[in-house]
Amino acid sequence: MPRATIDDVAARAGVSKGTVSLVYSGKRTISEETRERVLRAAADLDWVPSSRARALATRRSSTIGLVLARDPDVIATDTFFAGFLAGVEAVLSTVDMGVLMQVVPDHDRERDAYRSLARGRVDGVLLLDLEIDDARLDIVRSLSLPAVIVGAHPNPAGLPQAHVDDGRGMVALLDHLIELGHSRIAHVSGPVGYVHARHRLDTFRSSLRERGLDPSLVVEGDFTAQSGRSATAELLAAETPPTAITFANDVMAMAGLSYAQSIGVAVPDDLSVTGFDDSELAAHLTPSLTTVHTDVVAWGRRAAESLLGHIAGDDVADAVLDGPHLVNRNSTGPAAS
Amino acid sequence: MPRATIDDVAARAGVSKGTVSLVYSGKRTISEETRERVLRAAADLDWVPSSRARALATRRSSTIGLVLARDPDVIATDTFFAGFLAGVEAVLSTVDMGVLMQVVPDHDRERDAYRSLARGRVDGVLLLDLEIDDARLDIVRSLSLPAVIVGAHPNPAGLPQAHVDDGRGMVALLDHLIELGHSRIAHVSGPVGYVHARHRLDTFRSSLRERGLDPSLVVEGDFTAQSGRSATAELLAAETPPTAITFANDVMAMAGLSYAQSIGVAVPDDLSVTGFDDSELAAHLTPSLTTVHTDVVAWGRRAAESLLGHIAGDDVADAVLDGPHLVNRNSTGPAAS
Repeated sequence: MPRATIDDVAARAGVSKGTVSLVYSGKRTISEETRERVLRAAADLDWVPSSRARALATRRSSTIGLVLARDPDVIATDTFFAGFLAGVEAVLSTVDMGVLMQVVPDHDRERDAYRSLARGRVDGVLLLDLEIDDARLDIVRSLSLPAVIVGAHPNPAGLPQAHVDDGRGMVALLDHLIELGHSRIAHVSGPVGYVHARHRLDTFRSSLRERGLDPSLVVEGDFTAQSGRSATAELLAAETPPTAITFANDVMAMAGLSYAQSIGVAVPDDLSVTGFDDSELAAHLTPSLTTVHTDVVAWGRRAAESLLGHIAGDDVADAVLDGPHLVNRNSTGPAAS
Repeated sequence: MPRATIDDVAARAGVSKGTVSLVYSGKRTISEETRERVLRAAADLDWVPSSRARALATRRSSTIGLVLARDPDVIATDTFFAGFLAGVEAVLSTVDMGVLMQVVPDHDRERDAYRSLARGRVDGVLLLDLEIDDARLDIVRSLSLPAVIVGAHPNPAGLPQAHVDDGRGMVALLDHLIELGHSRIAHVSGPVGYVHARHRLDTFRSSLRERGLDPSLVVEGDFTAQSGRSATAELLAAETPPTAITFANDVMAMAGLSYAQSIGVAVPDDLSVTGFDDSELAAHLTPSLTTVHTDVVAWGRRAAESLLGHIAGDDVADAVLDGPHLVNRNSTGPAAS
């Protein structure tokens, strides 16, 4: 099979050749939606512009780095991570590059790891799980290591970011439930030490407060099915239980939904249930799960694309992905009166 | 916190210091169960023997390689992969090493990738998804690249292997169902192009045949919830539907179970359902899912451990992990009469 050309990419994305070029030139005049369509078409066709390929070919390592300061077991259970990595690899494979992943036990070893990577082992790094005062922003600058932040950071120190606004997903869920007449709405959060779990919870509280509803029905979970089930048991045992529960991920929601059914609480007649992520199983349960969809594979693609542009010397803008958007299925219905 | 010593590892694993040393010396006289306990204790305590650390420190790259010739999207949906990677990283983090992952579109680029990795970018590689006549066995030998095969291969060309016998899990499930009085047992397989999906299916057929039961109730799925649901619909619509369905993974089983309930088929009263994997959600549905447990994180640890030993010059034996073993929960019961 001959390699794809820029014409093939333009045709597949339904845009002109000029638009394809603009996406890769670092200009900011392209809509996010068009940019995403072009990048997906390019990844599908295994195509990369020759200028970009030349710029990358002069780099030493053909590798980007990903250092994780967390328990390796989290890799096994975090549904975000595998999808994100798939997106990163989809872009890297078009330029014959790989990703070097290293897990470190603490922040001291993290600094050592970046120093080692900067000695020609990688051409740039993706920064995940950023904290507010994160030492890595200084580390990568002092090492002159090209870096892209995955997620939104209030003080990015000039580094490009690739992120999705989770809060919009939570607002869409709450609008949907309130439209259905719900006023006692609960939230089962993720561990609030995570920036994204905290952000979903904060948006839950502020949105309900703005609408004059009670924002206090919150139980902290830890993203596991076990915690979804026990949080649901706690909420339904209350004197005045909620008529709807929003869960911070799909796994907790599916376990909570199953628990409610097992004690005779009908979903959605007695209780509406929502997830977060749109995992594949969510669509194929009975009832199917109302949730919000975040395209984490696209997120990985965009982050990798930004980093390759940064490494190649392009002027890289922040990437704000579309979504997340509401996926309205059968686990939500009118509030029980 | 001071670094852990060999005494700490021995205490945690409940063995003598001598046994810990034996595990790392490449001798074959240690039981798999003890070896696994020692390696898990060492990983938990972030400990590595000093002789091994010295041997690895003289290597150039502090990196091992993992080249995948498959659609990057498979990384996002394959529950095996994330767990396996978590186990690999748990071992590598104890010696400040990383894993370089590269996705290639076809076998030509695969050969190029290994050639590039062998130029000092990695010290060794793990080989996944092996086919019967796999070119990689020749490639790594011609490049003198230390390698470990993940899975069982009939002709491993002298390379060490790390594997689990999936067939034992299928036999345990069938024994359990037959003991409950089931004689019309169906199987929803994974895509039979995968060695492990094929192996589960072959074991299903041969085990039923040996017991004089009908081995023909098979529908091919693709490991997705969607396929689990539609395969279940097909099986239950038959004139004489099965009284039990074994699914080749948990996701298909959970979707199938939910579908059965939705059309008024009670589980386990009318139909017994079994999964394969023991994902976290499986324990927290109603009814909870009978399945088999494979410790893929341990599998990743053992594969990485074998490769580090191989790189350090140890005599590395094949690693056959315990299991998988039956997890008997509430989705199976006596056959309906």
